[in-house]
Amino acid sequence: MIAFLKNNISLLVGMLIGIAICLVFFNKVYPLPAAASSNAQQKIAETSSPNAFLRKFLVPQTDSQWKTAIEKLDSARDFDLDELTQRLNITISNESINGVSVHRITPADTSPATNALFLYIHGGAYILGGGIQGVVEGALISSLTGIETISIDYRMPPEHPFPAAIDDIEVVYRELLKTKPNTKFGIGGTSAGGGLSAGSIHNFKTKGLPLPNALYLGTPWTDVTKTSDTLYTLEGIDQVLVTYDGFLEAAALLYANEEDLKHPFISPVYGDASQFPPTYLVSGTRDLLLSDTVRMHRNLRQAGVEADLNVYEGLSHAQYAFFYESPESKQHYSELTAFLLKNLTQ
Amino acid sequence: MIAFLKNNISLLVGMLIGIAICLVFFNKVYPLPAAASSNAQQKIAETSSPNAFLRKFLVPQTDSQWKTAIEKLDSARDFDLDELTQRLNITISNESINGVSVHRITPADTSPATNALFLYIHGGAYILGGGIQGVVEGALISSLTGIETISIDYRMPPEHPFPAAIDDIEVVYRELLKTKPNTKFGIGGTSAGGGLSAGSIHNFKTKGLPLPNALYLGTPWTDVTKTSDTLYTLEGIDQVLVTYDGFLEAAALLYANEEDLKHPFISPVYGDASQFPPTYLVSGTRDLLLSDTVRMHRNLRQAGVEADLNVYEGLSHAQYAFFYESPESKQHYSELTAFLLKNLTQ
Repeated sequence: MIAFLKNNISLLVGMLIGIAICLVFFNKVYPLPAAASSNAQQKIAETSSPNAFLRKFLVPQTDSQWKTAIEKLDSARDFDLDELTQRLNITISNESINGVSVHRITPADTSPATNALFLYIHGGAYILGGGIQGVVEGALISSLTGIETISIDYRMPPEHPFPAAIDDIEVVYRELLKTKPNTKFGIGGTSAGGGLSAGSIHNFKTKGLPLPNALYLGTPWTDVTKTSDTLYTLEGIDQVLVTYDGFLEAAALLYANEEDLKHPFISPVYGDASQFPPTYLVSGTRDLLLSDTVRMHRNLRQAGVEADLNVYEGLSHAQYAFFYESPESKQHYSELTAFLLKNLTQ
Repeated sequence: MIAFLKNNISLLVGMLIGIAICLVFFNKVYPLPAAASSNAQQKIAETSSPNAFLRKFLVPQTDSQWKTAIEKLDSARDFDLDELTQRLNITISNESINGVSVHRITPADTSPATNALFLYIHGGAYILGGGIQGVVEGALISSLTGIETISIDYRMPPEHPFPAAIDDIEVVYRELLKTKPNTKFGIGGTSAGGGLSAGSIHNFKTKGLPLPNALYLGTPWTDVTKTSDTLYTLEGIDQVLVTYDGFLEAAALLYANEEDLKHPFISPVYGDASQFPPTYLVSGTRDLLLSDTVRMHRNLRQAGVEADLNVYEGLSHAQYAFFYESPESKQHYSELTAFLLKNLTQ
């Protein structure tokens, strides 16, 4: 091939010209979202935008490769726990509720919501964010609302695929229903945490448990079948998830463990959302899971549930949680706080 | 050039190979949105998706060219008025309110909302949809809600740029406030109709008029400065608007007539939305004006206004109005009906 091209320098030059012509027309470059806040724009500019095509090949194959990848990705998100607890004025303790590891987050002032409890379900594509890693967004919500929060450190693949996480959440919820009567419960999280929260409501319904009073779905992964429109339209535009092909799809399959991908505990958008509690949903115009979010919103509304959809200009998947000093993030968590306090204290 | 290529057949072949290689990587093809209803998917498949690049050059230059283009585009949307009035069980009459041409739409049964009136503001990029053309969506809303509707046939460019439309809406509203006391008013429309409705609320506020009780913003054009994120991310994906460059941008400039494009009567997203009435917003995941819609939603919520955002899977700009037999359309207008009746009759 190389030798052939060397002998055909015109062909090579022609190819390069052809590629150049083509790039001018087809390789779209997206400017910074000029209507996002300047803080968010700066953060977006500082974030690397990985190439979607190359990303597709990043797939661990064996359990041992998965563990290495999970360790590497988790350690990239290490944070200073002392800084977090001081900044948010909270305490965090690790305990076990009927064998399930949880982090109890206690805000300094719980007076706004003494008879409320929030179950925080962390995200991470059903495979990441275990241990203390998983508390960050739950800690922020607890601090802002004054609501004591139980962040559930559910079991994950490769050792513990579906339904381990759903089971762990149920175990904790059952115990709290028993030991904390007359409590209003909220539940929620971001990404896979949103998917697991909505899936758990389906599970609680099936089991005949009393349902929580409020649900938070932060850009929830509600469909693991690669059906949603924005997986295609926003591929390569979302800086965080980049593409569904490769890592994300493989993580979902690892988690589902050959269970039907449309099982409502796994892809809650396929379930009957009647009787779901009031729900607050958030996404962004560059979020690969925007469709997962708006489809779940429609599903809830069609079932007669009070559901409030909010979409932020220019933000990729879950960036409201990463850019916590941006006006967008402050807006989001301030509205979420009002939503939780309204539904869990009145 | 041609002669040169003829003498360099290798160069030409190389160029073609280069373009082919490049197309494989960069020319994205978007599948039908598989989670949209089958009816909507069929309609999307039947709709031509014009090439965004070619579209950019479609810009009338002179007033006479604009008039020809407007006539051609309007006539492409001709419809059977008798079929419409019979199907919707309404009557439509043309009249003048203080010199402004309007269509009065009277539903057969007005008992659900006897003391309510809806001002319908048609869309069409600030230049299209004049005359009887403009009544279609207003007729549907009137029929579904039982609310008598005044569809305002506001003056348009090239003869009557900004502020003619805003002035006409004000003239009609002032007269109705006078002649119809104790009436609850709704106002709204789709696309430019949404932009003009929100712009008119800013105008009414400035003039100290009592404000309407409900606002409908159907994929509203709330920013004519080419700032919104989805103008870039969804370019060529939206089947209806296709691209902002060319026709749309030129229409906005023709309408604004050298007034500041950020004037809140022209780009209402730049105004202070406090005191706005409860607002229902709708868009789609392939809608070039998705960002205009979600930014206006944020603007309203930040101002403390009750605002309800709804986004439909896979739909391009205003397709909820075009695909009126789809489940998406029925869902949208059914929720809008409930919203209007709640705010205009209780």
